[in-house]
Amino acid sequence: MTHDLDDRMHFAIDLARRAGELGLKYFRDLDNLTVESKGHQDLVSEGDREVELFIRAAIAEAYPGDGIIGEEHAAVTGTTGHVWVIDPIDGTANFVRGIPAWCVVIACAKDGETIVGVIHEPSTDETFYGRRGGGAFLNGKPIKASNAASLSEGSVGTGLSNRVSTKNVVVLITLILGEGGVFYRNASGALMLAYAASGRLLGYIEEHMNAWDCLAGMLLVEEAGGTVLKADPKTVLGKGTRVTAGGRRIFPRLQLLCESSFGFTR
Amino acid sequence: MTHDLDDRMHFAIDLARRAGELGLKYFRDLDNLTVESKGHQDLVSEGDREVELFIRAAIAEAYPGDGIIGEEHAAVTGTTGHVWVIDPIDGTANFVRGIPAWCVVIACAKDGETIVGVIHEPSTDETFYGRRGGGAFLNGKPIKASNAASLSEGSVGTGLSNRVSTKNVVVLITLILGEGGVFYRNASGALMLAYAASGRLLGYIEEHMNAWDCLAGMLLVEEAGGTVLKADPKTVLGKGTRVTAGGRRIFPRLQLLCESSFGFTR
Repeated sequence: MTHDLDDRMHFAIDLARRAGELGLKYFRDLDNLTVESKGHQDLVSEGDREVELFIRAAIAEAYPGDGIIGEEHAAVTGTTGHVWVIDPIDGTANFVRGIPAWCVVIACAKDGETIVGVIHEPSTDETFYGRRGGGAFLNGKPIKASNAASLSEGSVGTGLSNRVSTKNVVVLITLILGEGGVFYRNASGALMLAYAASGRLLGYIEEHMNAWDCLAGMLLVEEAGGTVLKADPKTVLGKGTRVTAGGRRIFPRLQLLCESSFGFTR
Repeated sequence: MTHDLDDRMHFAIDLARRAGELGLKYFRDLDNLTVESKGHQDLVSEGDREVELFIRAAIAEAYPGDGIIGEEHAAVTGTTGHVWVIDPIDGTANFVRGIPAWCVVIACAKDGETIVGVIHEPSTDETFYGRRGGGAFLNGKPIKASNAASLSEGSVGTGLSNRVSTKNVVVLITLILGEGGVFYRNASGALMLAYAASGRLLGYIEEHMNAWDCLAGMLLVEEAGGTVLKADPKTVLGKGTRVTAGGRRIFPRLQLLCESSFGFTR
């Protein structure tokens, strides 16, 4: 089983890097990129769609019985209990405007639990990865979530989506600043989760993320010794989840900020 | 005069790139980097100080009569009317924590007016540059500020400092979101101004920036066809300025947001 996990992880690392190369081809030729709107401040490009097809084809070849859930194309139902959860380009708003902060995200889940997570940023050639029980790594070196105990020791990442009220984000930012913290938003939620896993950010809070944006990063935070608000394995793949993740010592503060901003129910 | 301007610009491009190489040496060896606190959420590293000394030495050799103002060392009074305004590492909080979004900033001012501006991001090897009257460029290609007329068409960058009240930033963010916009904060003000100059962001708003953080970027936005709130040439070098900068069509909206958040007085 561990061998299978490792194999899946190395497959995902290699695939994310190759997908990143393909993404870079579109990114370097933005003048000719087709971009469409999916909704308010929600874009998709030819690059997103083509990179996802590339990833799907590679998975279908290597793991033909597995399911696939991706941001831009219909879900594939599998027979093995394994589901690959992919975002070909997280941070599409950055991507289509030329901002380098975007990444390829590949996770693998078994029975709703994430077992492999890879987040690759092509512009800086950084690959964050890990598998359940095996630790978290950046380009071959182990990473650790923040050891800070106070918000004044760093930054907290957050995100926006058109699925929730922007008023709640304002409350969150007000609370972060009120405790001497600072907020961070580079418009790629998966990348910010990778930053939380590597202690670059104290943590990350967002009211709702889709599975393809958050599963890989949440696994990495846990494997890097941090703490995450557990997602419901029965619903997370289909419906996404609230996300609170960060260093073990700061996590209780993050959780309080999250509940104060977005409420206690879920 | 134009020849002199061009010479200064090419000197600054080359210097920023060499300084970036030096900065990368520190950035790639963070475990051994000495970091100190200058105040609440305000850090300085050995890397900032050494890179600034490197830049100062190069300026003193090439333009020995010019003044120099930098973030980390005392000002040098010149005799030529030219003053170099430098931030060796803008985005120090990112730098010391391993986040790639930091940049070297070199501006040259004459009688309080910026005549050359260079912003170089070593992690992605992007150099944004321009001189008064000569246009703005990224790695040799002309850049243009955003042509958008509505906040719903993109993101607005903003920043935080311990020189102003965080309450005003919350007001700004509330107003941006209220108009269908989104806020962006990658913790490097100069880099976000470069993104505004290249149309990656609609614009940038911050209540107060020091001269070394904003002069280069403000020149680039203007040279890229955008509009900026003019700084007072008598006080900007010593005291900094409020910053509103962005595409020509969106600028009136940005200015209104700025005034509604930070008041009408300077």
